[in-house]
Amino acid sequence: MAMKRVGSSAVRALTFSAFTRHLHASPGSKKIVGVFYKANEYASLNPNFLGCAENALGIRGWLESQGHQYIVTPDKDGPNCELDKHIPDLHVLISTPFHPAYVTAERIKKAKNLQLLLTAGIGSDHIDLKAAAEAGLTVAEVTGSNTVSVAEDELMRILILVRNYLPGYHQVISGEWDVAAIAHRAYDLEGKTVGTVGAGRIGRLLLQRLKPFNCNLLYHDRLQMDPKLESEIGATFEEDLDAMLPKCDIIVINTPLTEKTKGMFNKEKIAKLKKGVLIVNNARGAIMDTQAVADACSSGHIGGYSGDVWYPQPAPKDHPWRYMPNQAMTPHISGTTIDAQLRYAAGTKDMLDRYFKGEDFPAQNYIVKDGELASQYR
Amino acid sequence: MAMKRVGSSAVRALTFSAFTRHLHASPGSKKIVGVFYKANEYASLNPNFLGCAENALGIRGWLESQGHQYIVTPDKDGPNCELDKHIPDLHVLISTPFHPAYVTAERIKKAKNLQLLLTAGIGSDHIDLKAAAEAGLTVAEVTGSNTVSVAEDELMRILILVRNYLPGYHQVISGEWDVAAIAHRAYDLEGKTVGTVGAGRIGRLLLQRLKPFNCNLLYHDRLQMDPKLESEIGATFEEDLDAMLPKCDIIVINTPLTEKTKGMFNKEKIAKLKKGVLIVNNARGAIMDTQAVADACSSGHIGGYSGDVWYPQPAPKDHPWRYMPNQAMTPHISGTTIDAQLRYAAGTKDMLDRYFKGEDFPAQNYIVKDGELASQYR
Repeated sequence: MAMKRVGSSAVRALTFSAFTRHLHASPGSKKIVGVFYKANEYASLNPNFLGCAENALGIRGWLESQGHQYIVTPDKDGPNCELDKHIPDLHVLISTPFHPAYVTAERIKKAKNLQLLLTAGIGSDHIDLKAAAEAGLTVAEVTGSNTVSVAEDELMRILILVRNYLPGYHQVISGEWDVAAIAHRAYDLEGKTVGTVGAGRIGRLLLQRLKPFNCNLLYHDRLQMDPKLESEIGATFEEDLDAMLPKCDIIVINTPLTEKTKGMFNKEKIAKLKKGVLIVNNARGAIMDTQAVADACSSGHIGGYSGDVWYPQPAPKDHPWRYMPNQAMTPHISGTTIDAQLRYAAGTKDMLDRYFKGEDFPAQNYIVKDGELASQYR
Repeated sequence: MAMKRVGSSAVRALTFSAFTRHLHASPGSKKIVGVFYKANEYASLNPNFLGCAENALGIRGWLESQGHQYIVTPDKDGPNCELDKHIPDLHVLISTPFHPAYVTAERIKKAKNLQLLLTAGIGSDHIDLKAAAEAGLTVAEVTGSNTVSVAEDELMRILILVRNYLPGYHQVISGEWDVAAIAHRAYDLEGKTVGTVGAGRIGRLLLQRLKPFNCNLLYHDRLQMDPKLESEIGATFEEDLDAMLPKCDIIVINTPLTEKTKGMFNKEKIAKLKKGVLIVNNARGAIMDTQAVADACSSGHIGGYSGDVWYPQPAPKDHPWRYMPNQAMTPHISGTTIDAQLRYAAGTKDMLDRYFKGEDFPAQNYIVKDGELASQYR
């Protein structure tokens, strides 16, 4: 079995490696499968609501007019799910981080015709990237399509936590009025220390938006920014993450989920943070140790936690983050605003077009190319 | 009765008008009354929680050590309330906008010893300013003490509405997961048109914080900003309010409550706004026609409404804004963060100190001086 797998992907990798440089759909009809969240009654409410299963990125007419088959489903998990029926003969799989189709090594092994995995959005960790690379597949996302969307959302969450917004809203809907119950732990953002773990595309946009708030801005990344950009943004580089974290009143996670970052915020790491620290995580849920976060919210060591990412997704009804105190969570939503949908639908269509024509994708979109992972996933 | 009133205030105004230039407490013990919200179990949770009745701005020791009497109460409304017991002989009344002591003409008439009305915070419309001016009183607030606090809060509310935050939060706490129910009306702030009605201290701080979001920024005010400041902020002046309003995706109210602005957003005005417009109002509740706002939220003409100001305050249990769709309200809180409390407590103490010593207040703090209202209240 293992022999067969290695053999099969080696052959495919070989064929593909000459091929990926000019990834080009062979002539004829291709089977393209899209996995998106279902919108039901909401699908028809907004003509720009392209990211749902019903509206399917708005590319059905375009694909079918070229003779391609386009299957779209939200049914991605469990035995006999719709996705699994198409795995054996699909050529392209389009998925999103909001309703992730988990592309495991096992699924990749079964997908004999698969060439291209497209993420409509940003963040391809729902794909076993190592297995995809070994199998010679191309993985690409619409880099930049929702960086602004996520950065704005992070700033909203920072403010919601710092200013203790939710207890006030709860009072309104429950008929109460108790300013003191909110005010005793409501603060201005001004003057606080905000640190971002990761200052890539999203982290930088966040820092730029934070600048007029007169905070003390810190960032940790593998590399220090260009001095000009750093001075424009007004943030200080912290080479040592463990030195930065205890200084922060507010920590924002802006790093991809990798083997290195998985479970990074565990009990020990959290214990070293400032008591009452606020954490915003729109990156990936699995970067946190789920129970450690819930425990620290209960003890008050974490003063507030907000984000839109969970593991797994959809979050089950009994996920502890739903019930922990001082949480300001939502489902995975920040990167799927209507504006972002328009951008990632256009970017996905553009890559499909290039795939049919044998043209390269925009360089920054590649996550796996020629058997190699993009640097941020290594 | 009317004669007596005119006579009495005329005499006082006369005495006072020579006096206000160098408002100076006469020698001896003064009776100072503070009206603040009660904090109960929250009072002891944070040593900087100075704005509540229990902690009383942190000036009790300082006042009493100088022989003054300092009465503090949250009991401000209704017959036989504690405040009314002290009206006849108090010299100074300290109040706040968060738990407003309504200083009516009737109360002013009864307050024979009253010289000074201090607002710990910003916004003195809970005081009948005309009556205060006629009676020769000095009214002053701690200008600047919470402008940053309110501007930050406004930006938070803009993001909460634009990004459709609350339905996602509700899903989390009720065990649901339905991305489409949020996403079909979630947008980025980037590229939207935001207009502020009023660009005074708070409006300008908001515009500065909005700048990196790449919006189309408009402002209406009595006066156009200095061209240099305007270009730094990147906002466009709209002389005609009625021309600006229909252009806006998001409208923020940053104008004081005056006879001119009271009920300004009535049914007719709202009907001229863009369908689906989002409104943020941290200024004063009475600037809106309460029922017109509730009706427009129900019809969907207003797509979302958020703010922390109501009329009256505390908002009764049956206030229609508690129950209208797409509201993201809180009790009156934005200007009473812990940071703001520290600033307005210090500013109030400073003015009391100047009053005892016969020194002028910082010029921008005066709301009524020498029988004249400050320009923004005219």
